[in-house]
Amino acid sequence: MNVERDPHAAFAARFDPLADIGRDPVTGGYHRFAWTDADAAAAGWFDRQADDLGLEVEIDRNGNRWAWWWPDDRRLNDLAPGAAVVTGSHLDTVPDGGAFDGALGVVSGFSAVEALRADGFTPSRPLAVGAFADEEGARYDTPCFGSGLAAGTLAPDSVLERRDRDGIRLADALAAAGVDPDAIGPDPDRLRRVGAFVELHVEQGRGLVFADQPVGIGTGIRPHGRWAFTLSGETNHAGTTRMADRRDPMGTLAALIGAAGREALARDAVATVGRVEVHPGGTNAVPGRVRAWLDARAQDDATVEALLEAVTATTSASAEATGVSCERRREAYAPGVVFDPALRSRLDGILRAAEWGPVSLSTAAGHDAGALAAAIPTGMLYIRNREGISHSPGEHADADDCVEGVRALAAVLRELAA
Amino acid sequence: MNVERDPHAAFAARFDPLADIGRDPVTGGYHRFAWTDADAAAAGWFDRQADDLGLEVEIDRNGNRWAWWWPDDRRLNDLAPGAAVVTGSHLDTVPDGGAFDGALGVVSGFSAVEALRADGFTPSRPLAVGAFADEEGARYDTPCFGSGLAAGTLAPDSVLERRDRDGIRLADALAAAGVDPDAIGPDPDRLRRVGAFVELHVEQGRGLVFADQPVGIGTGIRPHGRWAFTLSGETNHAGTTRMADRRDPMGTLAALIGAAGREALARDAVATVGRVEVHPGGTNAVPGRVRAWLDARAQDDATVEALLEAVTATTSASAEATGVSCERRREAYAPGVVFDPALRSRLDGILRAAEWGPVSLSTAAGHDAGALAAAIPTGMLYIRNREGISHSPGEHADADDCVEGVRALAAVLRELAA
Repeated sequence: MNVERDPHAAFAARFDPLADIGRDPVTGGYHRFAWTDADAAAAGWFDRQADDLGLEVEIDRNGNRWAWWWPDDRRLNDLAPGAAVVTGSHLDTVPDGGAFDGALGVVSGFSAVEALRADGFTPSRPLAVGAFADEEGARYDTPCFGSGLAAGTLAPDSVLERRDRDGIRLADALAAAGVDPDAIGPDPDRLRRVGAFVELHVEQGRGLVFADQPVGIGTGIRPHGRWAFTLSGETNHAGTTRMADRRDPMGTLAALIGAAGREALARDAVATVGRVEVHPGGTNAVPGRVRAWLDARAQDDATVEALLEAVTATTSASAEATGVSCERRREAYAPGVVFDPALRSRLDGILRAAEWGPVSLSTAAGHDAGALAAAIPTGMLYIRNREGISHSPGEHADADDCVEGVRALAAVLRELAA
Repeated sequence: MNVERDPHAAFAARFDPLADIGRDPVTGGYHRFAWTDADAAAAGWFDRQADDLGLEVEIDRNGNRWAWWWPDDRRLNDLAPGAAVVTGSHLDTVPDGGAFDGALGVVSGFSAVEALRADGFTPSRPLAVGAFADEEGARYDTPCFGSGLAAGTLAPDSVLERRDRDGIRLADALAAAGVDPDAIGPDPDRLRRVGAFVELHVEQGRGLVFADQPVGIGTGIRPHGRWAFTLSGETNHAGTTRMADRRDPMGTLAALIGAAGREALARDAVATVGRVEVHPGGTNAVPGRVRAWLDARAQDDATVEALLEAVTATTSASAEATGVSCERRREAYAPGVVFDPALRSRLDGILRAAEWGPVSLSTAAGHDAGALAAAIPTGMLYIRNREGISHSPGEHADADDCVEGVRALAAVLRELAA
């Protein structure tokens, strides 16, 4: 079906069309949010890659796409536990995100299948490239939506009524995108048939730059939570309301931002206030309400908890001093994950055999692999990121490193699916 | 044309239909922004009031509406300098604003004309009720747009290329609303024919509550400026970027908010950060850019300037310490205004004769009267606001006080136009 191609050209032929979808012409960043037109366009790209490679596309109850390479007449329901091998990642982005986060793993999955086919390889085990729905959770604050629902780490009832910034309910957005909101949820019958999931991802840091290697192995994911703070005071006129008479939540926002930075530094953790909504948002109105989101990650769950409580204490004290109320709501929490040791050891052996150095990396970034690790033996490969920048238009992996990544992933799939 | 009506019913018959336009059904607040459908609907309301009272509507080059009561065949271009008497205010609102700010002055103007007509009064001087375009400047940060352009205190070139939050240029919004963007600007031929402008406005504070009076007289407007701060750092991943490696502008935002509060309190001034934009705005992205607007007002220009420089110094120091750049741009500045002493003295006499106490009030709120004072002898009447709340759904004036306001305004117009 495919004639062998130069690996750079083969990679670009898949990567470039995807890189045209949802890109902001001014910033060069991406706005591919779940259940939008751009998301549907990316799904169309996925289906064309599968069709080109003779893979069979299946969309599961949670809106995840699976492109299957079936070696024989067996289909999913015929498989023994652990029979299948899966790679893949996600196609959605953060606001103004980069071209590689998520996309690189899906493109590399298809390119690895192309390379294996060109090499005359036929798998003994069913092999799939997956694209998991709404990994970033940018629209509904639902990170690892598709993978988390399937693995049972995200409860449907906790999110279906959420609204995006335009007031659209998640349940309605799902239905409009062809996903039945009443049907989403755990998918154990599917996941127990997968014996290994390996996600390839651009590194979001410079560990591989310092190690001078194009490819590394993930050891695990540090715990990660998101909380929304609602700070409520009283809207008033910015000219006629004396400072002493105000109940302005902006001072409490400043306290929250300051505490997040200090408390994270004190614990070798990271904390970010990256999204803020000020209501009513007029230049000449004292705000009545501020919502701010705190993203916190650390080496272990207890440290995340201690950081959160310290930030909350400072925020609440500022609120109380200024007649402002402070509510905190947990929007997402992903406990720390350690990837499957046996699979890590196999990945290590495969990479050494192919003459790459055995670089191991842990990360504070969430991934579908982290959610799926609750149900499937899971591992990760990272690709070098020269500047370490991610979640930004400046995110980049060199073409040579991408091609090395495809070579590594193909070697892994060849061994796992043999 | 009009039979005499109960003054409460007469006021409500004009106020209530306007109060249905642009109201948020959830908050009860208003979103009547310039050059929008809600703005056009309010203009339609204006035209119906004029038609009902036999007044002739004229729209000037800056989109301001004038409803003229012509006592004879003379029209604007026939008038001697200072011949006309004008009242009025504006119909636009801040985001989630109140029902009275602006609207009360226009409604009261029409109701005063109705009362004068019912009383058999015929003016010797031409008399107009005006609705000035975009007084709040909520959409383009152009406070006193229509009155400021006419008076020459706002330069067209400084604002026509501005864009609203949806990216729509002011010039395009004007054209879509039927205002020629090439024609806006100073209108001295018109304004020099106006001998007195009296704006009635809900008080934005509780001076009249403490004085136990329904109506007061404005002495002037304290200086008022708006500045936009752009704080630029580097967007990055919220999980993988160490705190020490970040160039996160949020810390500088916190410094700006804190400094605004402290420096205002130190000077008996007011300073507000009521609007903030965080880019890209993802929960899991370190922001690359923050824009924040500072609104500052004080007793004199020098105090506003000192406050601004102190806030800027603190903000810049924080920016420099964290690898963030800080740019400041002035979006609007209205110097302090003292209303025409002769007109104030006449208003005082008229109110005393009608047995109201002579309460004088200065304000830190901007008004069309402040802009027009640069070209016309100008005065203001304030109506009691029980809670002192403004720029908020809680803004309120009692019906009895509104009717007293109409009575006061009618007395003023009767004397000025006799």
